[in-house]
Amino acid sequence: MAVIAPSRRIRRTPFTDGVEAAGVKGYTVYNHMLLPTVFRSVEEDYRHLKTAVQVWDVAVERQVELRGPDAARLMQMLTPRDLRGMMPGQCYYVPIVDETGGMLNDPVALKLSEDRWWISIADSDLLFWVKALAYGYRLDVLVDEPDISPLAVQGPLADDLMARVFGDAVRAIKFFRFGWFDFQGVSMAVARSGYSKQGGYEIYVDGTKNGMPLWNALMEAGRDLDVYAGCPNLIERIEAGLLSYGNDMTRENTPHECGLGRFCSTQTAIGCVGRDALLRVAKEGPTQQIRAIAIDGEIPACDQIWPIVAKGKRIGQVTSAAKSPDYHTNVAIGMVRMTHWDEGTRVEVQTQDGPMTATVHENFWI
Amino acid sequence: MAVIAPSRRIRRTPFTDGVEAAGVKGYTVYNHMLLPTVFRSVEEDYRHLKTAVQVWDVAVERQVELRGPDAARLMQMLTPRDLRGMMPGQCYYVPIVDETGGMLNDPVALKLSEDRWWISIADSDLLFWVKALAYGYRLDVLVDEPDISPLAVQGPLADDLMARVFGDAVRAIKFFRFGWFDFQGVSMAVARSGYSKQGGYEIYVDGTKNGMPLWNALMEAGRDLDVYAGCPNLIERIEAGLLSYGNDMTRENTPHECGLGRFCSTQTAIGCVGRDALLRVAKEGPTQQIRAIAIDGEIPACDQIWPIVAKGKRIGQVTSAAKSPDYHTNVAIGMVRMTHWDEGTRVEVQTQDGPMTATVHENFWI
Repeated sequence: MAVIAPSRRIRRTPFTDGVEAAGVKGYTVYNHMLLPTVFRSVEEDYRHLKTAVQVWDVAVERQVELRGPDAARLMQMLTPRDLRGMMPGQCYYVPIVDETGGMLNDPVALKLSEDRWWISIADSDLLFWVKALAYGYRLDVLVDEPDISPLAVQGPLADDLMARVFGDAVRAIKFFRFGWFDFQGVSMAVARSGYSKQGGYEIYVDGTKNGMPLWNALMEAGRDLDVYAGCPNLIERIEAGLLSYGNDMTRENTPHECGLGRFCSTQTAIGCVGRDALLRVAKEGPTQQIRAIAIDGEIPACDQIWPIVAKGKRIGQVTSAAKSPDYHTNVAIGMVRMTHWDEGTRVEVQTQDGPMTATVHENFWI
Repeated sequence: MAVIAPSRRIRRTPFTDGVEAAGVKGYTVYNHMLLPTVFRSVEEDYRHLKTAVQVWDVAVERQVELRGPDAARLMQMLTPRDLRGMMPGQCYYVPIVDETGGMLNDPVALKLSEDRWWISIADSDLLFWVKALAYGYRLDVLVDEPDISPLAVQGPLADDLMARVFGDAVRAIKFFRFGWFDFQGVSMAVARSGYSKQGGYEIYVDGTKNGMPLWNALMEAGRDLDVYAGCPNLIERIEAGLLSYGNDMTRENTPHECGLGRFCSTQTAIGCVGRDALLRVAKEGPTQQIRAIAIDGEIPACDQIWPIVAKGKRIGQVTSAAKSPDYHTNVAIGMVRMTHWDEGTRVEVQTQDGPMTATVHENFWI
């Protein structure tokens, strides 16, 4: 594997010093920024995530801030999820679609107040889409990227660690809610959320200069909890069916194909720019959909689309895959046509190392 | 340095097989795609680029295609460069700005016909900006990313190599013009352009499947010309003053600050969304500007902003730097305030390894 060349264009985060001190071994690039992918080994990180607590540099989840009288209107233009019932203090997972219903991003939105929102984005320059919409519609809204960098605390001991740093009140935060908590005199949004199914929090660290002090405070407070630096874990996120924008879904796909229909209320999401395009698919359902795929044998790294084939015909593709220690199979995420998406369907996956047999499942492992 | 983790999200290009066979040693990520940064060593690649001919995988220069009756109007909305005089067959370097005059990208635009354009983009999802503008203004135009992947042939022997593969007619292509040439029955745009000052071409390879056959044909035809795989060379591009979006300029900067005022005709670029914001700066000039900086001593890799300081006050920043074998100094690109941008001004550059003395120059080396 080739090394990643250093340049200012690939931005360091407020936590990169801590990440490097912890011995990061691999990076990917996400929103023009460094995202760690492995510390000790993907398997060791996986086991540790499921048993202890990790601190994740997820500053790559940049925020798109909407502020002003038209902020709520603009927010609803972006997504087929109906936002009318959303209250300040709530987080919503919101598929973002273009005028054809194609996915542009799959962020978590935080409603700070009626006229102020943060969109915590996946890997695409959503800012460009939002700014141009605001401009084209002459909306009264400020759209910008603030100096906010999420730091995740994930794992079964996350509550204990967070309580030591932010106080016991963090334990009361409900899933996909956030509250405001002080760290060294700076108020920060703390949400119960994160890109794993091991439980935990995301701290929206306000101000680059506050990054390393908080990182160090968490590491210090969690010594006897076996805290360590971590990152979104490829194996665990596939077991959990957590999709990755750019990997498992792109602009080619509707939210319904991505299995995100439950987050769409297309009929009532009035103002969404993709609403017209999605009404029909929302009613009739998609012709292909995300599925869990169990692949037999020894697989290489999934760095490209793997076609899924049945009786010589292409019926889908695998886009993420990893060997799972806990489930004794290769866990994978794929998009499968409706003719072959039923539980237990046997298919063939064509990797760069040759064809492998596989089974389609309707549910993910975790 | 950490390795880059494999994933489908970081797209391989039509030429990645050839790049790997040539022994690529480093990558960066650019438009969600792999861009090679070094083959033998940055210094060896540099010397070879200046004496022979290289084939560069620059598929990361994705195309944004505009097609339809409103294509020309939309194109002019994007840039303060006046496009009225542009003819089919011409390439224009076009600063792209938002409504505040901030740079969103610095691509080369190709005018295929009155109603069809390609924008060959730098590292940002310009597609999102263009699509949302077209939607907001209800323009009659199709905006999409076609299956076109540029392959550059750069170096003093580029004409000879290209003539062997495409015929002697390629020699007649003028600078920043393009023509249509056949390769194995497929017509491709071939432009005299590229991200070096050693001369050469960019081939807009039409169709992923035609990538490796063309790569191999060039390698085969150029054996006695010492052809080898190459890539944009950090040292040569700094010597030449070729800016890099995300490194040397961002959304924070106007084209005028980037020294791109000569590509702007803001007064007459009617329809440009950034025109109002830029009229004043176009008239009065910027208060900071890109400069060549010669840094003394031994410098580390420039993976972050290096503040430029004079008498204890911050007066600018360096964003790209490399040791130059030909010019016996560290060549660098910086943004410097007008109080210190005159030729020969002595300043201090604060690297992560400590402060270095440096000199501001008005002209780049090549």
